[in-house]
Amino acid sequence: MNTIFVKDIKDYLGQEIHLRGWVRNVRKSGKLMFIIFRDGTGTIQTVVYKPGIGEEKFELSKTLTIESSVEIWGTPKEHPNKPGVYELDVTDLKPVCISPEYPISKKEHGPDFLLSNRHLWIRAPKQWANLKVRHTVYHSISEYLNNNSFTRFDSPILTPNPCEGSTTLFEVEYFDQGSAYLSQSGQLYLEPAIMTLGRVYDFGPVFRAEKSKTRKHLTEFWMMDAEAAFVEHQENMQIQEGLIRYVIRTVLEKCSNELEILERDVEQLKKADAPFKVMTHYEAIELLRSKGCEIEHGEDFGANEEALLTEGSDVALFIEKWPKKIKAFYMKQDPENPDLVLGSDLIAPEGFGEIIGGSQREDDYDVLLARMEEEKLDIQTYEWYLDMRKYGSVPHSGFGIGLERLVQWMTGTKHIREVIPFPRMIYRIYP
Amino acid sequence: MNTIFVKDIKDYLGQEIHLRGWVRNVRKSGKLMFIIFRDGTGTIQTVVYKPGIGEEKFELSKTLTIESSVEIWGTPKEHPNKPGVYELDVTDLKPVCISPEYPISKKEHGPDFLLSNRHLWIRAPKQWANLKVRHTVYHSISEYLNNNSFTRFDSPILTPNPCEGSTTLFEVEYFDQGSAYLSQSGQLYLEPAIMTLGRVYDFGPVFRAEKSKTRKHLTEFWMMDAEAAFVEHQENMQIQEGLIRYVIRTVLEKCSNELEILERDVEQLKKADAPFKVMTHYEAIELLRSKGCEIEHGEDFGANEEALLTEGSDVALFIEKWPKKIKAFYMKQDPENPDLVLGSDLIAPEGFGEIIGGSQREDDYDVLLARMEEEKLDIQTYEWYLDMRKYGSVPHSGFGIGLERLVQWMTGTKHIREVIPFPRMIYRIYP
Repeated sequence: MNTIFVKDIKDYLGQEIHLRGWVRNVRKSGKLMFIIFRDGTGTIQTVVYKPGIGEEKFELSKTLTIESSVEIWGTPKEHPNKPGVYELDVTDLKPVCISPEYPISKKEHGPDFLLSNRHLWIRAPKQWANLKVRHTVYHSISEYLNNNSFTRFDSPILTPNPCEGSTTLFEVEYFDQGSAYLSQSGQLYLEPAIMTLGRVYDFGPVFRAEKSKTRKHLTEFWMMDAEAAFVEHQENMQIQEGLIRYVIRTVLEKCSNELEILERDVEQLKKADAPFKVMTHYEAIELLRSKGCEIEHGEDFGANEEALLTEGSDVALFIEKWPKKIKAFYMKQDPENPDLVLGSDLIAPEGFGEIIGGSQREDDYDVLLARMEEEKLDIQTYEWYLDMRKYGSVPHSGFGIGLERLVQWMTGTKHIREVIPFPRMIYRIYP
Repeated sequence: MNTIFVKDIKDYLGQEIHLRGWVRNVRKSGKLMFIIFRDGTGTIQTVVYKPGIGEEKFELSKTLTIESSVEIWGTPKEHPNKPGVYELDVTDLKPVCISPEYPISKKEHGPDFLLSNRHLWIRAPKQWANLKVRHTVYHSISEYLNNNSFTRFDSPILTPNPCEGSTTLFEVEYFDQGSAYLSQSGQLYLEPAIMTLGRVYDFGPVFRAEKSKTRKHLTEFWMMDAEAAFVEHQENMQIQEGLIRYVIRTVLEKCSNELEILERDVEQLKKADAPFKVMTHYEAIELLRSKGCEIEHGEDFGANEEALLTEGSDVALFIEKWPKKIKAFYMKQDPENPDLVLGSDLIAPEGFGEIIGGSQREDDYDVLLARMEEEKLDIQTYEWYLDMRKYGSVPHSGFGIGLERLVQWMTGTKHIREVIPFPRMIYRIYP
C-alpha cells in the first residue's frame, strides 16, 4: 500500500492508500463521520461509514478532536458532482495524538492573541496559503534571476558600515572590534561582486529598527537585491518588469488553490501581467496635484500618494528620474539634468504600494566621492566600496525587492505580519 | 550584432559578436596582442592582430591593463587543437575604464591582506569558481527539497531564546523588549511549522559568537535546516543521503569548469556518489580505539577523530545513536536504550569533517518537559515550542547542513573563509 500526500491523491483514485496528518474539522451525522483531513500538502474530506468500518473503529473515530494527528487508510474517489474535488472512503484509522481543545477557534481573535500564538495560528487555512504563496514567490524570483545569468552571492549580515541612513540600525557588540550593525541591504556588497560574476543577487533577511507601527512595517524582513554590470537605467526597469510578471504568472499557475482559499481576486492579478506604466517623478507630482494633493515638486510620496498614482490602473507603475536630494548617494545623476538621478520605484496596483526600488549606480569615482563628501559619509569605511570605481569601473544598475510586500500583493493580504512565518515588530519578538 | 555572454559563445561561432567585461591578462607578441577576457560567466582568449584591426586600435589595445573594463567586438572560433576551447578574433574594441596597477598580483599575499581586500580578491579565478560552486550547491539543496515536498519557511533571525547553548550568542537590544539574540539555528521554529506544512526547511544566515580561530569556523554562516512530519530516524538519514548525493551529481554536472580551475580531484567526488556508510557512536569509539586513539565511550569527536573515522573511505559516514548526555535536549531517546538518542552526524570523506547534524525529535510532551527541566531550561520561554507536542504531536525528524562546510568539500577548499563572499571571523568584520 502507498503512503502518499494529499496533493498526489488524483494519481491514486480507486486504490487503497495511507495518509498521515491532522484533523481540520469533524462532523457526525448518524452512521457517518466526516473528517476534514489535512497533511500540509492539501486537504481532503474523508468519510467514515459505521457499517463499513465496524463499531469499534467508528467509536475510535469519534475520539478525534480538531487538530488531533491521525493515520488514515482508505480509497479516494472523485466527487460525483465536483470535478477535481476528491473524497476518501476510510477503511481504517489510527489516532496518533488526541488534541485538547485548540486555542484558536472559529470565533474572532484579536491580533495580539494570534501573534502570541503564531506557532499555532500558522495552521489556519489562510495562513497556510500565505506561506505556500511565499514559497512560490521566493523560488520564482530565484528562478527568473538564475535563468537570466544572475549568480547568487550572499551578502553579509554583520557589517561595519550602514547602507541607508543610520538612525534605524540594530547594533551588535562584535568581540573587541567595536560595534557591528545588522544589514539593511546587501547592495553595497553586490556592487564589487559584479566585477567577478557579472550579474549577482542576494536574498536574505535585512533589519530596520524602525519604530513604525503600520501594517506595512516589520523590523526583520526578506529582501532580494540584484546588481548587474553593463546594465543601464532602461534595461534595469525591463529586468524588473520581466521578473515581476514572471512571478505573477508563476503564482497564478502554481497557487490556484491557495489563491482561492485567500479569496484573492485572480482576474485582477491576471490583468497585472501586462506592460507596466512609466512616469517621471515630475509627472507624478503633476498628476497628484491635478487630483487635489497638496504636494510640491521635489517631495517624496507616502502610502496615500502611491495609491492615488496607481488608482484605476491594472498594472504596476514605475516612477523614474527622482530628485537627487531625496534619494541615496549611490544613484547615478541623470546626464540630462544634474538635479535628478536615474532611479525608479515600482508601485504595485490595488494600493499595495512600493515593491521595488532601483537605480543605475554612479560609476564615476570622482563624482561618487564628491557626492559622498556632500553627504558627510565617513569615506574611510567606504574605501573598499569606492575601489570598484577605480579598478575597471563599468556602468551598472540594480534593484531591491521586499519579499513580504510582493507576497502581500500576490495574496491580497492587508497586514504584512501574515506573510512572514514569525513577524518581528516593535512590540513583538515572541515566539 | 548580438551582445552575448562568454558562456554562450559556442552558439555564435563564426558570427560577429559583442562582449563586455574585464581584462584578466594581456600579452604582446610582435603584431599580436593576446587579451584574456572575462565577463563573469566565463573566460576567453581574444586575439588582436595589428594588420587586421589597424594601427590606431592596436595602439589602443596596448593601453589595456589587468582588470581594465572593456568592450570587444569579434568573431569566435573553436581552437584548432583543443575542442571545446574558443578564441575570439578581435575586430574592434573600446576601453571602458583603464585600471591602475591592481593590488592583487600573482605573487603570494598573506591571508590578512587578501581578506582586507576581499572585494578585489573575489575576482581571482579560484575565488570566482568557489562562488559559482556555492551558487550551485545552494540551489541543488533547494531543488532536492522542493522536489521532495518540502516548503521553504524562513525562521526568524531575531529570537528571544537561544537554540543551542547560550555562551556563543550575539546580543541585540530590542527596543524596550529587552535583549534579543541572533539565531544559531532555525530548528525550533521549524518544528511547529511541520504541523501546518508537513515538511519544511529554512536556509539563511546563522550566528555563533565563537572565539575559535580554526580554518573551519565563521561567526556568520549559512545553514539549511529541514524538518519533516512522520519521518523517523532511518528515513531521516535516507533523505540526507539522497540530498547530498544529489548535490554531488549536480556539482559534477554543472561545475566541471569551476572544478578544473580549483584543481579538484573529480574522480574522488564521483566515488562519493555511492551508498553512505553507517556506524553507531559505540562502534565509532571502538574503531578509534583500535586505531590507537585515547578516547572513551560517551565522548564527542574532534576534527582528528572525524578524519580517522572516514580514513580510506570514498563515501560519507553516518555516526548514529549518540550518548544522550552529549547531545541536545530535543533529540528522541532510543527506545532500545534510554542512554542514547536517535541522532546522527554525517561525516564527509577526505577529511572534510561533519557536514550534517540531525535527529528524530522527542515528540512526547512529558518526556521532553522532563528532559528540559533536567537541562535547567527556562520552560516559560519554550512554552510555544512545547505546544506542538500538546496539539496533535507527531513523530518527526530533521537535520541541518552547514552550507560552507559542504561547499568546502565539493570544491576541495581548505579554508572556510574562501567559500563565503565576505567572511566574518573573530578578528574580521571588514569589509
